[in-house]
This record gives sequence, C-alpha cells and structure tokens, in this order.
Amino acid sequence: MTESVSLSLTPKELRLHFRRGGWGRPTAGLASGYVQANLAILPRAQAFDFLLFCQRNPRPCPLIEVLEAGVFEPAITAPGADIRTDLPRYRIYQDGALVAEVPDIMEHWRDDLVSFLLGCSFTFEAALASAGMPPRHVEEGKNVPMYITNVATAPAGHFSGPMVVSMRSMPSGKVVKAVQVTSRFPNAHGAPIHIGDPDAIGIRDLARPDYGDAPTVRQGEVPVFWACGVTPQAVAIHSRPPLMITHAPGYMFITDLRDEELAVL
Amino acid sequence: MTESVSLSLTPKELRLHFRRGGWGRPTAGLASGYVQANLAILPRAQAFDFLLFCQRNPRPCPLIEVLEAGVFEPAITAPGADIRTDLPRYRIYQDGALVAEVPDIMEHWRDDLVSFLLGCSFTFEAALASAGMPPRHVEEGKNVPMYITNVATAPAGHFSGPMVVSMRSMPSGKVVKAVQVTSRFPNAHGAPIHIGDPDAIGIRDLARPDYGDAPTVRQGEVPVFWACGVTPQAVAIHSRPPLMITHAPGYMFITDLRDEELAVL
Repeated sequence: MTESVSLSLTPKELRLHFRRGGWGRPTAGLASGYVQANLAILPRAQAFDFLLFCQRNPRPCPLIEVLEAGVFEPAITAPGADIRTDLPRYRIYQDGALVAEVPDIMEHWRDDLVSFLLGCSFTFEAALASAGMPPRHVEEGKNVPMYITNVATAPAGHFSGPMVVSMRSMPSGKVVKAVQVTSRFPNAHGAPIHIGDPDAIGIRDLARPDYGDAPTVRQGEVPVFWACGVTPQAVAIHSRPPLMITHAPGYMFITDLRDEELAVL
Repeated sequence: MTESVSLSLTPKELRLHFRRGGWGRPTAGLASGYVQANLAILPRAQAFDFLLFCQRNPRPCPLIEVLEAGVFEPAITAPGADIRTDLPRYRIYQDGALVAEVPDIMEHWRDDLVSFLLGCSFTFEAALASAGMPPRHVEEGKNVPMYITNVATAPAGHFSGPMVVSMRSMPSGKVVKAVQVTSRFPNAHGAPIHIGDPDAIGIRDLARPDYGDAPTVRQGEVPVFWACGVTPQAVAIHSRPPLMITHAPGYMFITDLRDEELAVL
C-alpha cells in the first residue's frame, strides 16, 4: 500500500490493513477528520482504579470508550473492529517496565482485560490547521515534542505519577485563538494546561523532549503546552501495575467517530 | 434557623447545620452560585460497573467527584465535609426497593462503600436565570417536573434502565438561547436531550410527572427536556443492586465549587 493510496482509505479499511500486518509508520495524517485514540489495557483488578484515575485526570486521559472485561470490539466508536489486532503497533509493560513492542496482542489477550480508549491531540491539531494554525511539527513531518513535567496527576488508588505534555510554539498573537479552538475538544485534551515559561512546569530544556522529536521554536514564539495521552505510560512506569498494554506512541487506534462529534460547542 | 438567615450561609456553614440535623426543606436556593450535587453510594463490588455507567451516560450522570472505598471526605469539592452526615436527607435502596429515608447514614456506613457525586441542574438553572430565563417552577416555588422516558441509558455491567428527564417550558424564541446557555455546563447535565413533542421520548402526559410537581405550561410554549440526576435512582429500581444509598430528591450535597468552575467555555 503506497502513501497516496493509504490517505484515501476509510477508518475500517485502515483497521483491516493493520490487522493483516505490515504497517510501518505512525498513523498521523490517515483518515483525516476521524478521531484517533490512545489505548490502555489493564487487568480487571486494576480497572476501577484506572477508570477513576481517568475521571480525575480528564485533560491527559479523556475517556472516549471503555470496553468491559474480555470485550475486544469497541462497539460504540468502531463497531466490528478488534482492539487486539487493529492498531499497527502495541507496547507491553510489566511491573512498570516496557518489555515488548508487538504488531498484535493475540498472545497477550486474557478474559479479564479491560480496554480504555482515550482521545488524541490529532483531533485538535486538525482544528488548529482549519483555523490557519497548522502545528509546525506536522508541517515538518516530525513527531510532536513531549515532556515529563513536575505537574502531578491526581492519584487514584494504585495509580499516580507525573503529567506528560505536548508542546506547540506559536506567535503570541495566535495564542488566544489556539486556546479557543482547542477548548472545543475537551475529549481530545482540550485547552492548554500552560502557556509560556517551560521552567514553571519543570521542563528544563525545550530542545530535549522526553518523547518525540526536538521542536523548531522561532524567535519571539510562545511555547504552549497541552496534556498528553502518553501520560498513562509515564504513570505505568511510576505505578508499576503487573500488566499494562498500550498503543506504541504515534501508532493510534482509528475510530469511526468524526472529530466534530467530540466538540462541545 | 430562619429562611432569611439560611440564604446568607456559606456551603460549609450549611453542611455543618445539616450535620447537626433538623433541616426540613429542599436545598434549592441555598448557597447561591455554588455547585450542588446528586449522590449515589454503592459497595465496591458494584463500583466499577457504576463508574462505567456514568462514563457512558454523562448527560444524566456527570461525575464531579468519586470517593474511593471507605472515604467519606470529598477532598476535591468540599474539604472537611462528611458525606455520611452533611446532606439533609438520604434514601436507602435495597435490591431495588426504597426501604428508608434518613437524616444521616452513620448506621449504614461500611468501609467498602464508594461514593459518587454527580452535577445538578441547579447550576444551569442559575445560568438560565442570569440570562433572563428563570425556570417557571423556580418562580412558582415548586419542584421541577421529572419524567421517566423510553430513552434507554447505555448499559454498563450490572446497570441499565430508562433515562429520567426534567422539563422546563419556554416561548419558542428562547429555546436556542437555552441550548447555548446550558451547553456551557456539561457537568451539570449540559444541553437539552430533547426539544418539543413529549410523546417522542415516551412521555404521555406532561401534567402528570413521575417525580416533582405538575408544571404550568402556557399557550404556545415549547417543552424542553434535560437529562436528570434522578436517573441513578430509576436505574437502581431497574437493576436492583443489593445496596444503593442516594440523596433524597431535592436534598442535595452542597459543595465548595463555584458554578462557573463547571463551565467549559
């Protein structure tokens, strides 16, 4: 499948393609206009604590669908899909350590696993682009820069840890519009959590992100920070649940939901 | 305590007053500008299912705080409060049957109980009043009319049942503004779920509500329906959990949260 062909495929066609295997790139830019989702899967024994963690931390962890124990079809956001095979790449964390990156999780599936789909910044990046503010990392074909902050998430039961943020820099005259545009999508991380001085949230060097690619920040631009869906992975490393399965960063689950269906107004 | 004195008390002062007992009226109109909350308490064994039920049904069940098993202080929305004593009146449901209405739940408290606080329409009614649209039942000093609909909630594990709605009628020229004003408060039931024909959602006779008082609907007015926080009680009756403790309708938990803190924009 070539890049140009893939851009015209529907979410369902893309999921079937991923199911057959062999998709080597992140999902950014695919199925334009459709919601992509972060994935976190946990055993039932940790599921209440994690669901509560998401309720207490809606900015980094906006829930768009939760699949009950043993269920692998996301009947609300992607009927007919299979959460075990329809993402291009998964990560397996055991006791807080990343132990494998795999193309499907059939071998790891158990009847007590509960799956959580969380909104993704691709939704608000499309809205920013529509408003004349395409994020620079998208224009440059790079991954968004992500940073571990000193902002603590609200703990819930077993789970706690630092919030991860993504950063997009822009001229100061566009910051207010960026707040407005992204506020419409609380289920895709919503408004920024911080504007300006990186040091105020514990980021020492913008040029050295903890995940993703180093950004290009131009003279006079303001860094703007949004809560990030990689937070559950930082929380897994911090809280060490016996098992947590996630998407590989950038290799998202593509739903049948339209971006605009997530808008609050 | 007289009516006029009570209107000037803070949320904390009111909670302490309720704790001492002897408050015989609903909490409508008290602590103006502060969020009041619906309460549902369930044993840990049903807590994941109910938390998921709320996630899947955010319109009737907008979560504003969840207290982990055995915790009775709502540290986020009302530090220092005690959920077991600080509401004026509670209801006890056993196996889906209402078995008691009590002034506190000290006798019923157990270390495995999980407490859920849900947003309340008082928040958006204040916003409607500020926008020149005070609901008529407020002006008339009556309880809002509530109806059991034929709209099914999204089931989650053990829990399912019909959605309960509240109704406010208004001239057709005010309906759009009512949608806009209430859309700002998704954590207080948000936008209406239906405008117009009651029959379309299974309501046969507006004059005979299932809960609350019969409404005054004037010639040419449009009935507008919002999801209602009494839904968990209808769901309890339908799903018959072994134990569910709730507030008595109208006798809410008064938090320290400001109404505007719930606004999305």
